[in-house]
Amino acid sequence: MDIKNFEEKTVAVEKIFDGKVVKLRVEDVVLPDGKAAKRELIAHPGGAGMITVDEDRNVLMVRQYRIAAKEMILEIPAGKLEYGEDPKVCAEREIIEETGYKAGKVIPLGSYYATPGYCEEVLSLYLGTDLTWQGQNLDEGEFLNVEKYPLDTLYQMVMDNKITDAKTAIAILKAKAILG
Amino acid sequence: MDIKNFEEKTVAVEKIFDGKVVKLRVEDVVLPDGKAAKRELIAHPGGAGMITVDEDRNVLMVRQYRIAAKEMILEIPAGKLEYGEDPKVCAEREIIEETGYKAGKVIPLGSYYATPGYCEEVLSLYLGTDLTWQGQNLDEGEFLNVEKYPLDTLYQMVMDNKITDAKTAIAILKAKAILG
Repeated sequence: MDIKNFEEKTVAVEKIFDGKVVKLRVEDVVLPDGKAAKRELIAHPGGAGMITVDEDRNVLMVRQYRIAAKEMILEIPAGKLEYGEDPKVCAEREIIEETGYKAGKVIPLGSYYATPGYCEEVLSLYLGTDLTWQGQNLDEGEFLNVEKYPLDTLYQMVMDNKITDAKTAIAILKAKAILG
Repeated sequence: MDIKNFEEKTVAVEKIFDGKVVKLRVEDVVLPDGKAAKRELIAHPGGAGMITVDEDRNVLMVRQYRIAAKEMILEIPAGKLEYGEDPKVCAEREIIEETGYKAGKVIPLGSYYATPGYCEEVLSLYLGTDLTWQGQNLDEGEFLNVEKYPLDTLYQMVMDNKITDAKTAIAILKAKAILG
């Protein structure tokens, strides 16, 4: 296929906000046809998440209040990277902190732009197996329920459009494809 | 399971930015333990995307420059909702604008928070079949390549961690699960 490169050239950057979680800037760009446009861009250090499947094919999920969703939603355990942190190290830490289990074997499930039109966040996903108990250790100010579901139940929930978090849907679908 | 409600109560809102694509605000909240915290929140009207599969099991994908990714990435056709727009109507419009094809049959693949920790965007996905040619009609300032792939090739790309857009991974995995 003849793939055209439609790169946009940034000619100016206006910094709007520098927060604890996100930074926001507006870039003036030149489009491939030479016209000018503005791009609103969110910077974020990135995240990592892990779906664990135990020897009985059960998965530990977390249900937590998400103010952006204004409800408690069901997700795989995940967290924000420290700037420059290896996402696999982050996912391994988060799964212990949130569920108390350490994964002996970790398989990468890919890295994804959550919403590449305006946000730089890349989220790396992993499948963890060979679990051993270490003890839960939530961050201060972190409140969540840990819930156990059979992998096949979660897969059916994704197919029935009952999982509402994008990373969680990907992790369940790929874990099911890998483990059968 | 005993599910605890960990709702956060908003006590103050500071508006930071009101852009063409995103709005940003910081909310002062009270956590379930009574302590105070700040939440950075991105408002977005939401989006909709469609994966089409023709009678030969081929899929029309778009490859476009994403400044947030600083590269051309491969995605299903998708677009931003007008405020209050039905996401199915948006997905049906975008697939015609970007690929030139109209989907005669549309199956919902769910609605997802792209990144619920800080962003209100909900992205609704659809599977379109029974395609008829209408003619491509890109928005001004929209530059993209349309590329055709067998569904089974795209599925293998997801399993090999070569698809980097979250909505696209979900749409391919669910289309493959539905169509076999």
